[in-house]
Order: sequence, then C-alpha cells, then structure tokens
Amino acid sequence: MAQTDVPYELYYWPGIQGRGELIRLAFEETRTPYVDVARRPSQEGGGVAALERVLSAAGGIRPFAPPILKVGDLVLAQTAAILAWLAPRIGLAPEKEGDRLAAHQHQLTVADLYTEVHDTHHPIGVELYYEDQRAEARRSAEHFLSERLPKFLGYFEDLLRRNSRSTGQYLAGDRLSYVDLSLFQMLTGLTYAFPRAMRRLAPQIPLSMALRDHVAARRHIAVYLASPRRVPFSEDDIFRHYDELDDAAIELPPAGE
Amino acid sequence: MAQTDVPYELYYWPGIQGRGELIRLAFEETRTPYVDVARRPSQEGGGVAALERVLSAAGGIRPFAPPILKVGDLVLAQTAAILAWLAPRIGLAPEKEGDRLAAHQHQLTVADLYTEVHDTHHPIGVELYYEDQRAEARRSAEHFLSERLPKFLGYFEDLLRRNSRSTGQYLAGDRLSYVDLSLFQMLTGLTYAFPRAMRRLAPQIPLSMALRDHVAARRHIAVYLASPRRVPFSEDDIFRHYDELDDAAIELPPAGE
Repeated sequence: MAQTDVPYELYYWPGIQGRGELIRLAFEETRTPYVDVARRPSQEGGGVAALERVLSAAGGIRPFAPPILKVGDLVLAQTAAILAWLAPRIGLAPEKEGDRLAAHQHQLTVADLYTEVHDTHHPIGVELYYEDQRAEARRSAEHFLSERLPKFLGYFEDLLRRNSRSTGQYLAGDRLSYVDLSLFQMLTGLTYAFPRAMRRLAPQIPLSMALRDHVAARRHIAVYLASPRRVPFSEDDIFRHYDELDDAAIELPPAGE
Repeated sequence: MAQTDVPYELYYWPGIQGRGELIRLAFEETRTPYVDVARRPSQEGGGVAALERVLSAAGGIRPFAPPILKVGDLVLAQTAAILAWLAPRIGLAPEKEGDRLAAHQHQLTVADLYTEVHDTHHPIGVELYYEDQRAEARRSAEHFLSERLPKFLGYFEDLLRRNSRSTGQYLAGDRLSYVDLSLFQMLTGLTYAFPRAMRRLAPQIPLSMALRDHVAARRHIAVYLASPRRVPFSEDDIFRHYDELDDAAIELPPAGE
C-alpha cells in the first residue's frame, strides 16, 4: 500500500489497454488500491465524461492526453513521468539513484517503441482511419518489422544481458521495477499484433522472453490478467493484429550493434 | 557553473541541431562549460567515431540513441531524462517540486511533437530516404499541419496563459526553465520548416511567439545563435523545409479544447 491516504486515481480510455496499461500493471503488481475512474459507471462519476473533465480542467495544468494520474491536488500526465513519480512510492523503483535514472531512461525508450508500433497502422495520421492509410501501413509495418523492431528488441535484450546486478533478470538494478512490467506488456502486445514476426524473433531474445514469462506468472499479475479488470486486446488499441501487416522476414543485428 | 569539477560531455551528431540542440541551449543559456565531443576534430578524439564509441560502450548501460550526456561515470540518454537530471544542477529547473514535475511533463510533450514533426518527412520509415516516401510525406504533412500542429501549439499557448505564477511568460514556475528553451527551439524550427503554416498560426499563439522572441534576445542565447557553435538548419535535420509539404490551411481549435 502507498504511503498516503489520498486515493490514486487513474484516468485513461476505458475500452483499451493503451499506454494506461503500463500504470495499471504497476498498481496491480503491488496491489496498490487505485480507482480506474473512466471504467467506473457514468452514474457514479465515471465513464469517458470523467476523463474529458480532467482533460479540460478549468484550473491548474491541463494534460495534453491520457493517461493521467490524479492524487489529491497533483494532476500528472505522460506515462514515463507518472511512473517515475509513482514507482518509488509503491515499491517498484530500483533502490539506487543511478538505477532509477536508468529505469527512467529505459522507460522512455519503451515509450519510443510504443509510438513506432502505433505508427505501423497509422503512418499518415492518428486522426484518420486505418482503412484510409492501409497501403502506407503495409510499407510502414514492413520497415518496422525488418529494421526497427529487431533494433529495439536487440537493445532491450542487451540491457538484460549487461545488467550484472541481477544476472540477466531485470532491466535496472537488482529487483523487479516498473520498466520490467512495461517490457512484459510490450512483448505481450507485440506477440498479439505480429505473431509470425515474434515467432521468428523470440529465439534471439531469450532473456526478454523469460522476463515476459516471469512477469506473467507473478502472483498478482497472473490474477490481474485473468480478471475482468484486464481489457482484452483489440483493433482499437495500440497493438493491433492485422494479418496483412505481419509478414516481413526479419533478423536481429549482431549483439552490440 | 555547475556544482561539479567533472566536465559535461555531450555526444550528438555533429552536423545537425536535432534533439541535441535542446541540451546545447541549456548549456549556452547558463554559460555552463561543456564539450560537444563529436564536433571536436577526430585527431583530438572527436568526430562521429567518438559518438559511435559511446553508442557501443563495452561496459555499463549502452544508450539506444543520441543525445547522450556523460559526466564522469554517468552515461545518460533520452533528451527529457538528461534535461530533468541536468537542469537543477545548472540553475535551469523551476524551484518548486510541483513545477519541476510540470516542466518534465511538458518536456515529454515537446518530445512527442518532435517525433511528429520528424514523421512528416519520414512517415514510412526513419531508415528510408525522403525521396522514397515523398507521396506519403505530403499526406502526412497535410494531416500534421491541419490537425496535430494546431492542437499542440494551442496546448502550449494554453499552458502559458494558465501559468498565473509568471503572468503568461514561462511554461512552468515563475522563471525561465529548460522547457522554455525547448519551446523556443520548437517554434524556431517550425518557422524554418513550415513558414506559410506558421505565418497563419502565429497570431493565434501570441504568448508563445513572445516567449520565442524573448529567448532569442537573451544575452547568452543571442551570442550563441550568432556563433559558429550553432549548427544551421538543413534538410538532413528534424526540421526540414520542403516547400511541397508547407501548404495546408490550418486553424487553431478554440481554447480549452
């Protein structure tokens, strides 16, 4: 439980996992009580209307986009900023200052990869339909799967391999931190979206796949994933499975590249 | 000068402003001594080779991409993480903790806009030439100029307007911080890349344009901008001027949207 009596309120789109899931996972792993405000019934002050109220807040700092964390007077947006603030308060940050800096840096690289995953199906514009950019999406996904994804996943694998403090188990420091949960979510999402590409890649990133399986099997995470609180994957989300986008031959660059 | 005798070393591509410029500006405004390593002659350990050595570091945390800040044993990547760490040490962070959180959050929104600007000329893939994605770039830029840019710039204008602590002058807190320098760079770059679009937009974001002019006129920044240390804009950079991408009719959404 957190070191505060003020409740943690998460504001995020109720129908998708999206970037909000990285914060939900942090709460769930630590069994920190939180209110997923927009997933509550409208009659009880929830729903998308609640989210829109925070997005257009009359006073204080207006967030650009969800996810948003509200704790008393604090209203904080940007996933990586939220996690950097939240994690030390719920026991999910590395202990040493240097490892905390590393975790934040890695979380920002996860965020960059999230954007590139999203842009495979929305290369022209986020406010246009997929159907209106399907041809461009094919080109974009091919480039992503052959060039970018191997580079990113090879990088995270390399981080795990180099982290002597935890013999290849965690991305930063010597215990599980929020960035490990985010890598779990990333790998799970990629496997949903690009099953063929990930089948080819998986043997080349054994530490990452072991981390994914380890996180999935953790007691509180396993309970969460099986619960109705876990929103299912869908084609309204960041990780979308379009079969036509999942068929490039990919190969990892040599380690250290 | 910083509270350290260890020199600040910045590693970034020597021929462009890019994201590294946001860190250069922070050093220049505060007249903090720093070494722009890759811009030094190769014979003196500089050049792109120096950058590549840090990117493939044999020990410690390997950065995913530049910019990279090296201070003694610390090697830190990700622009926003670097600035959040650096700014309090060189007098460029807001004083209060809440304002520091806000500055970091805003910097991450600047980073998101940087990515979207870059993707106007590289919508399909960063590792392909512009010439190989020109048709897609036209569609992407049109969407960007009509939908995304007004939304982002309207948002920053709104932040300035709401910041009662500094009567519309600064983005966070009551004095100049690194995120103001980043907004200056963003607006200057956008004006280079999209002069027609920015001419139409400028009257709708008076506080932002005043901030841009205020920063450009600050003593140390003015000296820097006129010096050979300032790399000129170019079409190898993030902000590129392609006349064919700069012609959508744009309008800001009403305030608070």
